[in-house]
Amino acid sequence: MRERLLAAEKVTAIEWREGALHLLDQRLLPFEERWLRYDTAAAVAEAIRSMVVRGAPAIGISAAYALVLGAQARLAAGGDWQAALEADFQVLADSRPTAVNLFWALNRMRERLLRLKESDDPLAALDAEARAIHLSDREANLTMAQLGADLIRKYQGNLQTLLTHCNTGALATGGFGTALGVIRAAYLDGLVERVYVDETRPWLQGARLTAWELANEGIPLSLNADAAAAHLMKTKGITWVIVGADRITANGDVANKIGTYQLAVNAMHHGVRFMVVAPSSTIDMSLASGDAIVIEERDGRELLELAGRRVAADVPAVNPVFDVTPADLIDFIITEKGIVERPDTAKMKRLMCRKRLH
Amino acid sequence: MRERLLAAEKVTAIEWREGALHLLDQRLLPFEERWLRYDTAAAVAEAIRSMVVRGAPAIGISAAYALVLGAQARLAAGGDWQAALEADFQVLADSRPTAVNLFWALNRMRERLLRLKESDDPLAALDAEARAIHLSDREANLTMAQLGADLIRKYQGNLQTLLTHCNTGALATGGFGTALGVIRAAYLDGLVERVYVDETRPWLQGARLTAWELANEGIPLSLNADAAAAHLMKTKGITWVIVGADRITANGDVANKIGTYQLAVNAMHHGVRFMVVAPSSTIDMSLASGDAIVIEERDGRELLELAGRRVAADVPAVNPVFDVTPADLIDFIITEKGIVERPDTAKMKRLMCRKRLH
Repeated sequence: MRERLLAAEKVTAIEWREGALHLLDQRLLPFEERWLRYDTAAAVAEAIRSMVVRGAPAIGISAAYALVLGAQARLAAGGDWQAALEADFQVLADSRPTAVNLFWALNRMRERLLRLKESDDPLAALDAEARAIHLSDREANLTMAQLGADLIRKYQGNLQTLLTHCNTGALATGGFGTALGVIRAAYLDGLVERVYVDETRPWLQGARLTAWELANEGIPLSLNADAAAAHLMKTKGITWVIVGADRITANGDVANKIGTYQLAVNAMHHGVRFMVVAPSSTIDMSLASGDAIVIEERDGRELLELAGRRVAADVPAVNPVFDVTPADLIDFIITEKGIVERPDTAKMKRLMCRKRLH
Repeated sequence: MRERLLAAEKVTAIEWREGALHLLDQRLLPFEERWLRYDTAAAVAEAIRSMVVRGAPAIGISAAYALVLGAQARLAAGGDWQAALEADFQVLADSRPTAVNLFWALNRMRERLLRLKESDDPLAALDAEARAIHLSDREANLTMAQLGADLIRKYQGNLQTLLTHCNTGALATGGFGTALGVIRAAYLDGLVERVYVDETRPWLQGARLTAWELANEGIPLSLNADAAAAHLMKTKGITWVIVGADRITANGDVANKIGTYQLAVNAMHHGVRFMVVAPSSTIDMSLASGDAIVIEERDGRELLELAGRRVAADVPAVNPVFDVTPADLIDFIITEKGIVERPDTAKMKRLMCRKRLH
């Protein structure tokens, strides 16, 4: 399966080459494939804020590379470069609040800094750490894809109808995806009849990104309005809802793209299994429950305008872009360390003590 | 209250004057207020199909006036005008399948035809019947608004936070609305702190029409993505979801705009009361349950394009524009004949035997 999954890889959105970070501009997809080049930490932070790059793992990887760029500039400037680098840590940490992978990646880079020896080339060490973060995310994708597909096969060995929300594919990760990785593996395994894709307002990650990724690979899909999901669960024989996560707390609560929570409530109502797929870098054991997660509120204009054109009356809009799904609505959390069934604090603790599977 | 409600009326979308039907083009609102003039039944049918006019009661009223236009032309053409008029009945009945008010209005016009006496002026009789349908819808709005507001007061006498879906206001009815009529009356009654308005993809009736109607009247509102509704129920203290209906079956199942069903599931999950407001012309006692309702599927392009511009990848889209909310998720159905609490077949039968309240 690993080889078939790697052979099916078609899209990447993050490239680290020629001393710069190159990002595929996700604001323009699928209408235009434009790569942007970043050579400062502040510019990468702005790219994260403005969603040139999005998806929790992809944000973490981008922030790690941004620190290499920051260290390069600080070293060239001379003086106490590590103290100066704190400003880069800060601007990156401030870019988006909800996805914990960002803070996890920043912490890994900081820890590498703390371990620097006199004999080390600091830039080479940071570069290697960022590449390792990127590579291990890709490996985690492969492991999770296999675990998730095996789980679907365990319950249903024949063709299934799935539903997913937002984008959790190659565009959101360092590999080919978390939830979408599971869907890809399940498809290669002959388990997928059709994938229903929520368009995912307001940013249309489903309509623009997930639909594009699935169509590129010939996986049968139907796009639907977010509000149609329950009707589709009732009428189309959907057996699994499979989504990613931006932060998972110690008790198994999951912050993810707005709309995930009401999908989970409806999945429970319809007896549809609910699977969350995320690398362990998404798990924040420092927060006891989802109540403590900061939910990012973005500009209401994301609802009122589309591609710069007004689509709504001139009124106030609330635009929380994540919500929290409580653990008791979740059947499975899939990580590269293994599967947690019906998550709770004890099970999450046991998971986090494990070594990675790969 | 009746006088205050009438004084607050600002918008109309259907006018019958100068021998023609004038419709405010709802495809262009709120960006442009353009009235279109119709003088044939076929043109009105096309206006219904293409959603120049939408909203179950407004469709019924428009169809009634369309038959006056049809009869006028058939009478002028000579011959068996009543037989020829059947073609107009047919084209109108074929315009949109889900809202039963359309068929109810056509039946009322047919019954008036059957009661024609030799001494009657057929055109005058049909004209009077269409006007009566229009007027009685307006009266029904007033009665329901009062009943709904009284119900809110009965449970909570102070400021409430409400949530609504789609458009059920002056643009959808012959008066100032069904669900939005209740919200207007509750606001005039000092019961409304804020109304959350689902944008209502794909056609954005909430973002374009409801938001515009509420803002015009100074009722505090916040627009939100449809998928944010459950998160708002959990975090904003919403006490009522108030929606309209396109068809209510004998057991109290409700067909309404896609997304209503998942709102109802989430309202139940959050202990939020769920109120459906619709004139008795929306009730179809000929269908035992919602399973028998034909759900209109519209062109997937409504999801893939916005104002003629592509917003999604080039993929198949499913676009069911209504769904069915089972009676057991509904707390109250408000009609002009009275209120049904926790609807079932026996209660719906008792309601339909009552005389109108007004």
